[in-house]
Amino acid sequence: MTNAAAVRPGRGRRPAADVRDAVLDAAGAMLLETGMRGFTFEKVAARAGVSKMTLYKWWPSPGALAFDAYFAATADELAFDDTHDIERDLIAQMQAFVAFLTSRDTAVIAELIGVAQTDSDLAAAFTDRYTLPRRALAVERLRKAQNAGQIRPDADLESIVDQLWGACYHRLMLPGRPLTPDLAETVVRNLLNGVGPS
Amino acid sequence: MTNAAAVRPGRGRRPAADVRDAVLDAAGAMLLETGMRGFTFEKVAARAGVSKMTLYKWWPSPGALAFDAYFAATADELAFDDTHDIERDLIAQMQAFVAFLTSRDTAVIAELIGVAQTDSDLAAAFTDRYTLPRRALAVERLRKAQNAGQIRPDADLESIVDQLWGACYHRLMLPGRPLTPDLAETVVRNLLNGVGPS
Repeated sequence: MTNAAAVRPGRGRRPAADVRDAVLDAAGAMLLETGMRGFTFEKVAARAGVSKMTLYKWWPSPGALAFDAYFAATADELAFDDTHDIERDLIAQMQAFVAFLTSRDTAVIAELIGVAQTDSDLAAAFTDRYTLPRRALAVERLRKAQNAGQIRPDADLESIVDQLWGACYHRLMLPGRPLTPDLAETVVRNLLNGVGPS
Repeated sequence: MTNAAAVRPGRGRRPAADVRDAVLDAAGAMLLETGMRGFTFEKVAARAGVSKMTLYKWWPSPGALAFDAYFAATADELAFDDTHDIERDLIAQMQAFVAFLTSRDTAVIAELIGVAQTDSDLAAAFTDRYTLPRRALAVERLRKAQNAGQIRPDADLESIVDQLWGACYHRLMLPGRPLTPDLAETVVRNLLNGVGPS
């Protein structure tokens, strides 16, 4: 990747990494404000102060940019702690996740997932650029805990992801009960300790 | 409710309950074939052999009819066993649920939930006529198990629902991993026994 895309006449060069960050910031903010409606290369380019050509060089579609930006927007907020105590770290992670979901207009996030169900290009971008990388980060932290003897050696780590994050998405997308902060601790304790008789 | 709506000149009366069942059957089949696209009172009425007026009397909107029909379509297939063994019954239930999701065109079910995210009337109908009644049935079976000492007395039953069914929906809607039959047993055992060190 050269930084030729970042040359702007009369204003000198911006390093490519800076340009990319500016685009992701602008795209992430737009996405979390308004969802995919009106999310276009044109609007993102204007907001980031770059040319549309720059975006076309780096991203094959608005969906690909949107979910790269979504992943970037969550990266700091949803970073995985590693205090060597998986219960504590998972509770912190789920609290951050519930806070992330509920501190925004939750309808926007539900809608992002919703529109991905009826648009296969968007679904592929969402899976490749958000779901799979987030899942990999979660499994990586769980594997460390498993190696440290804090999770049973025979436990299937992928299904743990579904039973923690999936529980929160379930309340968001099929809202039979409200998504509240206390759910974070409850789902972690349920799953680590089991809900069967002790 | 009188069965006046079921009077059809020249063809005699059909009992109201029969008419209602015929409508729910027709609507459920249509919904699972094509989703909400083209789901109209007109088409359901034609398929069920009733008048549109009959539908208007019983359902305030196509969404309300669609999700009553969806609930009715799942009622037999997803009935809760009670063999007095919650682990066995939950595994049977989750196997039936995964089979229900995957034996159809899964895109239709994901799409139903997807469109509910961007249509508030549809969302309300989905919650009232499907999500809440299904949740209540699950919690009822879990409560019996709790009373029988098969689930910890302090366990939050609502969150168990999210961690079982939500895990399956997570694979359907955010497909980082495929939704396969083995997930049914895995999620039940994970949650009942715990994934922490024994």
